[in-house]
Amino acid sequence: MKTYLDCIPCFFRQALDAARIAGTDEIKQKQIVDIISRLIPDFPLEASPPEMGREIYNLVGKISGVKDPFKEIKENSNKFALKLYPELKQEINNSEDRLLTAVKLSIIGNIIDYGAKNSLDVPKEIDYLFQGNFTINNENNSTTFKYKQFKEALNKVNSIIYLADNAGEVVFDRLLIEELVEELGKEVIYVVKGKPIINDALIEDALFCGINKASKITSSGSDAPGTLLKYCSPEFIRLYQNAELIISKGQGNYEALSEEDRPIFFLFKAKCPVIAEDVGCNVGDMILVGR
Amino acid sequence: MKTYLDCIPCFFRQALDAARIAGTDEIKQKQIVDIISRLIPDFPLEASPPEMGREIYNLVGKISGVKDPFKEIKENSNKFALKLYPELKQEINNSEDRLLTAVKLSIIGNIIDYGAKNSLDVPKEIDYLFQGNFTINNENNSTTFKYKQFKEALNKVNSIIYLADNAGEVVFDRLLIEELVEELGKEVIYVVKGKPIINDALIEDALFCGINKASKITSSGSDAPGTLLKYCSPEFIRLYQNAELIISKGQGNYEALSEEDRPIFFLFKAKCPVIAEDVGCNVGDMILVGR
Repeated sequence: MKTYLDCIPCFFRQALDAARIAGTDEIKQKQIVDIISRLIPDFPLEASPPEMGREIYNLVGKISGVKDPFKEIKENSNKFALKLYPELKQEINNSEDRLLTAVKLSIIGNIIDYGAKNSLDVPKEIDYLFQGNFTINNENNSTTFKYKQFKEALNKVNSIIYLADNAGEVVFDRLLIEELVEELGKEVIYVVKGKPIINDALIEDALFCGINKASKITSSGSDAPGTLLKYCSPEFIRLYQNAELIISKGQGNYEALSEEDRPIFFLFKAKCPVIAEDVGCNVGDMILVGR
Repeated sequence: MKTYLDCIPCFFRQALDAARIAGTDEIKQKQIVDIISRLIPDFPLEASPPEMGREIYNLVGKISGVKDPFKEIKENSNKFALKLYPELKQEINNSEDRLLTAVKLSIIGNIIDYGAKNSLDVPKEIDYLFQGNFTINNENNSTTFKYKQFKEALNKVNSIIYLADNAGEVVFDRLLIEELVEELGKEVIYVVKGKPIINDALIEDALFCGINKASKITSSGSDAPGTLLKYCSPEFIRLYQNAELIISKGQGNYEALSEEDRPIFFLFKAKCPVIAEDVGCNVGDMILVGR
């Protein structure tokens, strides 16, 4: 996905949020804002938003001297989500269509955002979504929730690479991976980011949330908030190019890979008007698109 | 009020909104964003937000070639508000405290924002606010609704200058001015902006909304979205310096004048978190502060 002009105010907002989470004072915050301002005129709109995201969060790390400002937030999200695991598993066990429930939960997990306060709404939102408020017009015939096509694609493959998004959300991914591995007999490789970037899951988050009990874990090598191939390791690129099917979680991965000619299904919550426009949905919609 | 770092993302958002209202294409919009980006590093946070607002809207005018992009929006707001006038006047006639009702209405008028779609909510919001939802904890003892102090200040003066904010809102101002002139015998001068800036009221708006039936009208000469004294005419500066009491409407005028050592009361709706922080209130609160 290209960068929309409306992403630009949001770049500044994200920079300020991250700078504050990293504990910088107002002088450093202004310094960060000024550096981003100087980058904007040379930033081509053809680039994808995570390109600028990468610049922003690297800059915040450099100026604040804090390498992983979201570490505590990630740890809290992991703990929080792991506590929900038995209840969510039960939800799947009690459901008529285990895979559908696991897919929905995986998307619902994408509501875990980096602000700890958002995480507090997760149980409430899960309840709300499961009471029939999961936004799909017609589960079998929606243009933004292609469950039927997703199932068909799954039927044709033996192995899947699964691109992670946020810490905490990893627990919700684990539930879907368990269905893919234990119920459908697929081989899954779970791919996390290579270096700290916002609250994106790293190897340590995948291990903490128990992904290793269900699948292999690897890293993309990327330090962008999205799997931008040019920042990925050669090992990951090989894995990616040979993948039979790719499950991509979160907005950042959609932004990075939506124009790729690969068998990818994107699972995420549409959190901003720009994404909603690009996908053709409403803000807040739960999305399963791909081919 | 100084510029907060959180104003910066909002500058870009405002620029994009205005550029679109002015009918520019994406290339011109990017050009506007790039020019603003280059201004940011040299923009001191000690300056007040309308300083940058002035730059932004002048830039949009220059690049779009549209001198008054909000003209139609202003005309629609005026017509819309003028239709409400008889009903609002009745509201005052039926009230126990005419002045309090007129003050409340004047602040409610500040919800008229430049997007035409916002105007559609005005009658609903008026109803809502009059059903006891006007946010004041204690009308006689609130730190952000100083009605008692306002009445006392009024009692001591013969003349008032009244700084206008938006088109449409002018009708709500007229109701308060009629109370000040006809009921309390004050002399009022209504001050509009000197040149088109966003949807701020100009002489033509004041005349269309019938302010001339109640008071004199003059212009500040300012082309900033707030009465920034350095852009005002010498005639207005003289008027301002000699004023016994100043009623200042809207966020822009608060931002421009909040640190002035003059007898000013600010009436506005707190529309953004930055203003709310500066005033010490919640977003959405109806504010009457001053001395």
